[in-house]
Amino acid sequence: MQVLAPSSKLVNLATVTLLLLVLQYADVAHAGRQQRSTAPCKEMTVYHHNILYDGTNTANATSAVAAQPTLLSRSVSVNDTYFGEVVVFDDPVTAGPELSSEEVARAQGFFFYDGKVVPNAWFAFSLVFNSTAHRGTLNLMGADPMMEKTRDLSVVGGTGDFFMARGVATLRTDNVQGLYYFRLQMDIKLYDCYDV
Amino acid sequence: MQVLAPSSKLVNLATVTLLLLVLQYADVAHAGRQQRSTAPCKEMTVYHHNILYDGTNTANATSAVAAQPTLLSRSVSVNDTYFGEVVVFDDPVTAGPELSSEEVARAQGFFFYDGKVVPNAWFAFSLVFNSTAHRGTLNLMGADPMMEKTRDLSVVGGTGDFFMARGVATLRTDNVQGLYYFRLQMDIKLYDCYDV
Amino acid sequence: MQVLAPSSKLVNLATVTLLLLVLQYADVAHAGRQQRSTAPCKEMTVYHHNILYDGTNTANATSAVAAQPTLLSRSVSVNDTYFGEVVVFDDPVTAGPELSSEEVARAQGFFFYDGKVVPNAWFAFSLVFNSTAHRGTLNLMGADPMMEKTRDLSVVGGTGDFFMARGVATLRTDNVQGLYYFRLQMDIKLYDCYDV
Repeated sequence: MQVLAPSSKLVNLATVTLLLLVLQYADVAHAGRQQRSTAPCKEMTVYHHNILYDGTNTANATSAVAAQPTLLSRSVSVNDTYFGEVVVFDDPVTAGPELSSEEVARAQGFFFYDGKVVPNAWFAFSLVFNSTAHRGTLNLMGADPMMEKTRDLSVVGGTGDFFMARGVATLRTDNVQGLYYFRLQMDIKLYDCYDV
Repeated sequence: MQVLAPSSKLVNLATVTLLLLVLQYADVAHAGRQQRSTAPCKEMTVYHHNILYDGTNTANATSAVAAQPTLLSRSVSVNDTYFGEVVVFDDPVTAGPELSSEEVARAQGFFFYDGKVVPNAWFAFSLVFNSTAHRGTLNLMGADPMMEKTRDLSVVGGTGDFFMARGVATLRTDNVQGLYYFRLQMDIKLYDCYDV
Repeated sequence: MQVLAPSSKLVNLATVTLLLLVLQYADVAHAGRQQRSTAPCKEMTVYHHNILYDGTNTANATSAVAAQPTLLSRSVSVNDTYFGEVVVFDDPVTAGPELSSEEVARAQGFFFYDGKVVPNAWFAFSLVFNSTAHRGTLNLMGADPMMEKTRDLSVVGGTGDFFMARGVATLRTDNVQGLYYFRLQMDIKLYDCYDV
């Protein structure tokens, strides 16, 4: 990038002076307030437990069917894919895979099944943090093609400690027990972080 | 990186010239098109009125129950928290708290209840502006833990006058009349604004 | 912007040297990783086909009614606006208007009707790309006032090839066949693009 041999002290001086000014300006406009890059500015892995109401587990259940599967679902296949079933949840989200490990957030939102032949789902929810470590929310939405090993949702916004956050959350199905329990590993990477 | 005393007029001249060039470049790339900071670039306070259909108020109602509460909700508590009830709305949004004050937008979307013991809700909707003041939409989503004094939703996008907007909307329950009317004060702060 | 006549070689040299440094810095911080402007960094036009299950079209149907219209809808008008009806879909999205043209994505999500007197709808869904051209998702939400010629939804996030994308999708109703088929032309413009 050096056009001439740097023989002039005057040029060097000007270079230094202005580069400092430029960097200072850039700080004010960007780095001091916000980080944006393709390297995550924040990462976390958490576990989302969905415990569906089965008619008897009132004490433990954290989600319930708000709308039943449609007839389309049942007319297509012997193994129902539950097309059109809507589930509302307020699920525990823990630091480790065990349901008994520390609860770090609640996942509050809904999903529905939208696969006609192969199971498929779609989610929109908030991660609501309310601990000494974090207070605030992350808002997520996206398709969950359950049969794939990993699926990416968008983190489309945040509040509180996660003010204006954006990023990607990668889901892995970690544990399934019949129709009434599943656990998702959720690797969250934020690429927009603001200093708050 | 050596720094010398800035005694040379040439250096000063170069400094001025280049700083102007730098600032001009920065303007073109950023400030002239978009503002991003932790100070809001746009703020407004509006009032969202939800008038639920009760079977008789056909003329006034602006929302209705699309899915009834689940049995989980009713099995938990004497005071139903309506877990799983889904409400669709096209609600008036006004400049002042009175329903009769100037309508500035419609809130079009849905919410559902997802609290098992304590009432809780989750919202996703668009504010649709169609007045001389504003044309366009803001799109919002997030958890609404109704029992807290203030709750923050994310403004995740915008169109028209609110092209590409992002921000936070803070809700306060302003008035509740039984099951069929509530009013939310909504303080909207946008932190991403584009010149359009 | 020129402070003096550019007679000094030293000034010119410093100008060139520093401008290069400045541009290099700006590249690192911004253009090399991300483009943000009010000119789209990516554009595409696709066609979204909604084929609703009518009780007999099991083979062709790609969407179904998860919640029926509310009584509010039916009490208002002779021509039902379906207020409160919720539809879940996994719809084909094609490169050209014909359903038989190349499928470029699936639109997976839901919409509901929220117009009491005039038909109105609200959408949230993912465009799931899984072809040689594109792999990844775009996540969209927003109001769809169907009676207007064009309506703008927000693209609020993306994954894979559309990592962290944002933008606007403009809908045009392209074809309607009774209650069980409609086609939307969707002009998608992204204004946040990351190099991935």
